Amino acid sequence: MPRYRLTLEYDGGPYKGWQYQEHCPSVQGALEIAISKLCGAHIRTQVAGRTDAGVHALGQVVHVDLPKNYAADKVRTALNFYLMEERVAVLHSEKVTEEFHARFSATGRRYLYRILNRPSVPAVERGRVWHVPEALDITLMEKGARHLLGTHDFTSFRASECQAKSPIRTLDEITIERVGEEIHLRFAARSFLHHQVRNIVGSLKKVGQGRWKPEKIKQVLEARSRAAADMTAPAEGLYLTEVIYGK
Amino acid sequence: MPRYRLTLEYDGGPYKGWQYQEHCPSVQGALEIAISKLCGAHIRTQVAGRTDAGVHALGQVVHVDLPKNYAADKVRTALNFYLMEERVAVLHSEKVTEEFHARFSATGRRYLYRILNRPSVPAVERGRVWHVPEALDITLMEKGARHLLGTHDFTSFRASECQAKSPIRTLDEITIERVGEEIHLRFAARSFLHHQVRNIVGSLKKVGQGRWKPEKIKQVLEARSRAAADMTAPAEGLYLTEVIYGK
Repeated sequence: MPRYRLTLEYDGGPYKGWQYQEHCPSVQGALEIAISKLCGAHIRTQVAGRTDAGVHALGQVVHVDLPKNYAADKVRTALNFYLMEERVAVLHSEKVTEEFHARFSATGRRYLYRILNRPSVPAVERGRVWHVPEALDITLMEKGARHLLGTHDFTSFRASECQAKSPIRTLDEITIERVGEEIHLRFAARSFLHHQVRNIVGSLKKVGQGRWKPEKIKQVLEARSRAAADMTAPAEGLYLTEVIYGK
Repeated sequence: MPRYRLTLEYDGGPYKGWQYQEHCPSVQGALEIAISKLCGAHIRTQVAGRTDAGVHALGQVVHVDLPKNYAADKVRTALNFYLMEERVAVLHSEKVTEEFHARFSATGRRYLYRILNRPSVPAVERGRVWHVPEALDITLMEKGARHLLGTHDFTSFRASECQAKSPIRTLDEITIERVGEEIHLRFAARSFLHHQVRNIVGSLKKVGQGRWKPEKIKQVLEARSRAAADMTAPAEGLYLTEVIYGK
């Protein structure tokens, strides 16, 4: 059973998240149907990180053990053919050894959060950005974000349904950049808590609006209570951009 | 009847083009319904340039004479409210004098054409780019494009149903740039013939693939025959980005 590592892009809009659900469209479901068309058998895939309903991916990674020895390129081409009606594409396929595990071998994850920061609603980018009509001050947001860098107890930014054993995480990077009418927030860490990025973005937006001082982010973090942080930013602005393996 | 100039963004995907049609969704139809909800009367809009089915706009311009003296900002906000279920947004609204005419006052138009140039189909950008899987050489495409700059008879790149009196146009600018996995072609002219940009892109793609030499573009232009050029690039990659007024 040769193992394949697949890199995926998907528009999360039409799906109730990564994970397979019996009566709902899921990215995993769409991918596994395509794999069953290729192989004639139902085979489970293992994913680097389950994404929530509506969250997009530009570089999600899965591994799957196929019953036959296909050329890696053929797996990509065939799956893209069967995925034609879906909003999922295989960007890259390669054979890996059985030591590779999409989730457990991963040493880092990167996320992008896109805010469309202009008075008018999005027409072309609807469903792919969070629309914030009031002008945001990214210098203030950057100041607030700095309090989150490094190793902390992120209980305040963690979803109540988060299943991680520990709320301690190490945030290696947050960058905030204006790109035309958009604000792009980029995050890097070994791993994230459930809703961690979206909860951070929700609170940083409040700082950008001037409603919270940047130092408030530090107080929220230290409160270790979900009630201390602000709203969860919507799923539609979030992209899993990269999963890192090795150093 | 104060006149308003509106700048629009739209995703052309769900519409059968700009122009109002009785039984099909059109951008003009969507906008005029929103205007009638604001004013309680059906009022015709005048557009800078009618776009074809599936073509997008980031900076389309229309003018409309409203029966009441609304604040310009209120027109934008109210129309965006009524357009909520559509893929059309009003980016800007301002009062203008009756001398302003969206179409006849325009002194230039700018278009962007987006090619996604990678083996895998688009998932996130589906419907908003032309997918060309074979690697394109943009240096060759730039060489070919240079033959089109300036004033020429563009009969070879004009749709058979084009209604313009003259096939002579002056192409002021073509730039071709790689942006990540995409190739962005930008065009500027006082005005364009029907399908002119899409027909040029179709032929430049052939140059980028190495199937045509760059000089072939000159021969195609000089042939003054639609049959000489290659396919029309699909509508989904095309964006009207700007309409220019004044100098």
